[in-house]
Amino acid sequence: MNAQLPTDDETRIRALIEGRVAAAATKDSGILAAGYADDVVLYDVVGPLRHTGAEAHTRRVAEWLALYDGGIGYWIRDLHITVGEDVAFCHYLYQVSGTTTGGTDVRMWVRSTVCLRRTDGSWRITHEHTSVPFDGETGAASLDLQP
Amino acid sequence: MNAQLPTDDETRIRALIEGRVAAAATKDSGILAAGYADDVVLYDVVGPLRHTGAEAHTRRVAEWLALYDGGIGYWIRDLHITVGEDVAFCHYLYQVSGTTTGGTDVRMWVRSTVCLRRTDGSWRITHEHTSVPFDGETGAASLDLQP
Repeated sequence: MNAQLPTDDETRIRALIEGRVAAAATKDSGILAAGYADDVVLYDVVGPLRHTGAEAHTRRVAEWLALYDGGIGYWIRDLHITVGEDVAFCHYLYQVSGTTTGGTDVRMWVRSTVCLRRTDGSWRITHEHTSVPFDGETGAASLDLQP
Repeated sequence: MNAQLPTDDETRIRALIEGRVAAAATKDSGILAAGYADDVVLYDVVGPLRHTGAEAHTRRVAEWLALYDGGIGYWIRDLHITVGEDVAFCHYLYQVSGTTTGGTDVRMWVRSTVCLRRTDGSWRITHEHTSVPFDGETGAASLDLQP
């Protein structure tokens, strides 16, 4: 067995994350909201400090999709997955791009960390942390950084 | 065995995180920089998008401590730890407080996610994500949120 080859679990988690690319483009809220544990704790890119629960996540997905006029570009890079027996985490950068319903062009890089547990044989996201850094001098979110 | 009792691993990881409280107060950079894997990937509260490597983390700790005149308040709440066989993650909120060398009073809540692997019997932080959310209307980092 070659340790460099992905495990089946890694392949499943990769598919869960990479499935967001097509789902954002087609605004498929069902796919974007799938895979979350009932008691997930979310640290989102915009306030408040946190949300708790799959229903809160589903609502956040709907709000996010409604912000944009048309599909949303979601380009993933540097996805790194660590899989254990029943606990896993991954992190990646993604560029979100699109035009808001107010006519603003958005194109920014975001950091994402996704933490999972296997329960009854299925991987579920129990924690997700999404953010951009801020500029300590100005207090502004840094929306124009490049990886 | 009571499943509610912490495992030894959970106790170790809790001590690693909670040790930051006293270490920030006394500005003990050795404790704050300990426990990181050589190839750790850091998403920090201020830019850039990421840092890579334990040396980069040690440098960031030194920069952070130098920002403050005197000890730094570091108050943790809602620390939640998930431990598997060799993979673990935890998340918590912390309030950082103090006075910068420039005389600015800081008191803000921050979200933190810490991801670990056990290597050669020791838990090492391989990924850490620290952030505040931003306000989508103004583009400003939200530094005055309460949990």
